Amino acid sequence: MNYEEVMKLALERGFYFPSCEIYSDAQAGFWEYGPSGVSMKTKFIELWRRELVRRDAMLEIDGSQIMSKSVFEASGHLASFADPIIKCKVCGLNFRADKLIFDITKTEIPESADLADFDRAVSEKNIRCPKCKGEFEKARKFNMMFKVEIGPEAEAAYLRPETCQSIFVDFPRLFKTMRGKLPLGIAQIGKSFRNEISPRQSLLRLREFYQAEIEVFCNPNKLDKLERFSEIENTTIRVWIDDELKAMSCKQAVDSGVLPNKFVAYYLGLLTEFYEKTGIDMTKSRFRKLGEKEKAFYATVAFDFEVQTTIGWLELVACNYRSDYDLTSHANKSREKFEVLDDEQKVLPHVFEISMGIDRSLYTILEHSLRDEKENERIVLSIKPYLAPVHVGVLSLVKKDGLKEKTDEIYMKIKRRYDAFLDHSGAIGRRYRRLDEIGAPFAITIDHQTLQDDTVTLRKRDSMQQDRIKIQDLDTVLLKETAFP
Amino acid sequence: MNYEEVMKLALERGFYFPSCEIYSDAQAGFWEYGPSGVSMKTKFIELWRRELVRRDAMLEIDGSQIMSKSVFEASGHLASFADPIIKCKVCGLNFRADKLIFDITKTEIPESADLADFDRAVSEKNIRCPKCKGEFEKARKFNMMFKVEIGPEAEAAYLRPETCQSIFVDFPRLFKTMRGKLPLGIAQIGKSFRNEISPRQSLLRLREFYQAEIEVFCNPNKLDKLERFSEIENTTIRVWIDDELKAMSCKQAVDSGVLPNKFVAYYLGLLTEFYEKTGIDMTKSRFRKLGEKEKAFYATVAFDFEVQTTIGWLELVACNYRSDYDLTSHANKSREKFEVLDDEQKVLPHVFEISMGIDRSLYTILEHSLRDEKENERIVLSIKPYLAPVHVGVLSLVKKDGLKEKTDEIYMKIKRRYDAFLDHSGAIGRRYRRLDEIGAPFAITIDHQTLQDDTVTLRKRDSMQQDRIKIQDLDTVLLKETAFP
Repeated sequence: MNYEEVMKLALERGFYFPSCEIYSDAQAGFWEYGPSGVSMKTKFIELWRRELVRRDAMLEIDGSQIMSKSVFEASGHLASFADPIIKCKVCGLNFRADKLIFDITKTEIPESADLADFDRAVSEKNIRCPKCKGEFEKARKFNMMFKVEIGPEAEAAYLRPETCQSIFVDFPRLFKTMRGKLPLGIAQIGKSFRNEISPRQSLLRLREFYQAEIEVFCNPNKLDKLERFSEIENTTIRVWIDDELKAMSCKQAVDSGVLPNKFVAYYLGLLTEFYEKTGIDMTKSRFRKLGEKEKAFYATVAFDFEVQTTIGWLELVACNYRSDYDLTSHANKSREKFEVLDDEQKVLPHVFEISMGIDRSLYTILEHSLRDEKENERIVLSIKPYLAPVHVGVLSLVKKDGLKEKTDEIYMKIKRRYDAFLDHSGAIGRRYRRLDEIGAPFAITIDHQTLQDDTVTLRKRDSMQQDRIKIQDLDTVLLKETAFP
Repeated sequence: MNYEEVMKLALERGFYFPSCEIYSDAQAGFWEYGPSGVSMKTKFIELWRRELVRRDAMLEIDGSQIMSKSVFEASGHLASFADPIIKCKVCGLNFRADKLIFDITKTEIPESADLADFDRAVSEKNIRCPKCKGEFEKARKFNMMFKVEIGPEAEAAYLRPETCQSIFVDFPRLFKTMRGKLPLGIAQIGKSFRNEISPRQSLLRLREFYQAEIEVFCNPNKLDKLERFSEIENTTIRVWIDDELKAMSCKQAVDSGVLPNKFVAYYLGLLTEFYEKTGIDMTKSRFRKLGEKEKAFYATVAFDFEVQTTIGWLELVACNYRSDYDLTSHANKSREKFEVLDDEQKVLPHVFEISMGIDRSLYTILEHSLRDEKENERIVLSIKPYLAPVHVGVLSLVKKDGLKEKTDEIYMKIKRRYDAFLDHSGAIGRRYRRLDEIGAPFAITIDHQTLQDDTVTLRKRDSMQQDRIKIQDLDTVLLKETAFP
């Protein structure tokens, strides 16, 4: 199914929809999760916790989103987290300079180029405003952080553009109070904010978005000395390197030099195992090694985890070996000590980052799970049961003859433990199709036989098979079938 | 235990600590949750989902935190969500005018008074700056919303000061697409932001804080026609009304007029049952009915759920009957339709709000659960197992003789499913005490006998009792003992 079909489902079935949509000044790049979206996101996060945070004994924090100016002076965001923009003198519209110049002339100017380079291109190619044909003002830098003013004294602070800055700033306290030992992963889920010039495509380029970031602090002299590497050495990993896809075990990837060391291979292996469990079609995925020009300025090695969708390859995770860039910057600016002891040696840890976009991951899971089964006249979201917005529909065949009361009774028993959806009204076939669309892996139907022998019909979403089971076995079946792997 | 002792635990054991603390421009009112705090908060939210959202079949959403200007024009926040402040002409410090005047003169001027009233008091009582004795400028209004500018055009938007505004604005779409029926609860957990002039007391007055808000949309003509009232009619509720505590069943509270109707009583009953399960000492709690002057301007009836702590009564939840104030305001401003059908009659729903402060609730749980057991030379966080930051400590008695490897093996088996903490180093007594402080209800210790008969010692936090159990029974025991009620 394609982007438009996923969007239709999202809007009609409570997955996501635009923020403040009743108002004409609603801003692009802000979206809400509806009930189906919240439920799926909550389960996705629980899977992430199980497969990454708990599995690797990481520490998880939840830091404030508004952070002090000093943080972003040190991180470099205040000086460099900016896009070149040009503004039309006539209609006042702003455009990304590099994008507009490329769209019109097919000439690539890197976004980090001097502003004069953009002005020269605009003038030489006589580029005008696409909307009103007006002339452009000179290019300027537009910082993508949102500024806020704290207290009546209006001290400058910023909404964080990435969650990881809290992790770096909190590292000294966390390492000490939590009795840290290298390598140590510190994880965080939360909102980040970027004042994008052209937000677009619903969840794919947002101004306010969810990240799940992991920063693993390590001893740079021990990148090939990781005992737990054996846990993933046989896991198959797909790496796109030198314009070629190489699918091989993590061990082979290290031995052949496709991945630089065991440390990086271990975390890419964990990530692979995590995404396999989300139901994303992994044959459409790859870790793409970034070239020198593509990498973020702080990264010495970088891999993007990308997945193929109907609108192209989507970057779901950025994996960056950030070396000691962040800790050195914050140490210099704050005078706080960031060195720690490892085997009785003082070491300034290096950082490997696994920066996941949650919203994009959820979109990709939806696109890869949604099927139009024309033969069965249904659209079915064939999502993993442990990620399904609703675990089980609870339906009365008809409302009369005491079936409604019996159905309510069964629903009451299971609703705190499972995401259950009670539905009394409409043709039973339509109710099943509705549950198929929101991905409910099970539906139980209460009919006249239920009143006689305390059994219900259990319908499975994917096979549409129906079996009668005893009410008393319901909990055992649901517990087993909806459990995390 | 008192506020200072809870704070000491919070800082030393990874519950919470100040944001950006390594920098001198760290701002007051911003705090981070450390690993223990995140784990406890996640579990608290799951309990809230079970006992309120799922139990009452509410819809949960997750809306954007930055919202359009129109939203707050309609809600009244742009015009009235402001405190009176006065600024010292000499040192430039700002003060809440009403608070400062009260502190110095014991004269109460309501915060909503005319600005001239504050100026008059300052001049008549010759009030000077407490810091430098300087004279004050004239009083002014300080709006407590944080403003942000969207895109290069810098369109004004605001960080939401309460999560409920998303719920009101999204109501038309949600009611329609989710096939809503009155009464319908819509719930949201998320950050809200208030630019407080004097943030203080760590989690108790924050500028960035977590709310769990529920807005129940209802037919105002049916407030005494709620079938599911029978579920809570015998639940004991504690209401503070006319300077007196009345503890009675929900049914008695309605019959005697202590609570206005079954609808309000039902939700206060649910909330009571929820907080009973958090482990807060409910004999120290009350729903305090607010007087006419105390209520928010939109509330026709209001109860604060308050709990006694060592720093006084804390308001954990505000319960407001907001009538149709919000939907009417948004309908007028947006021209969107907010009426819905109920029994084939068009009705503009009224709203009953249950606005919970998560941070304050967590603080209160900590204070009520923390005990100094001098006789056992330990501090113990006697928190409910399903809210404990760590479910189980996994300890090797000594590292040698293969005990470390056996311990690691057991830890590996349970760590994805439970919050487990592996600890090999230090005296066993110190390791137990450390687990007691973070509230781990169980510790298992692997010793030489383990290697012979595959049993481990299971130590219980509260009784300190130790039993030997088989490794193969561990999962059954932990599953049962840490399960949500």
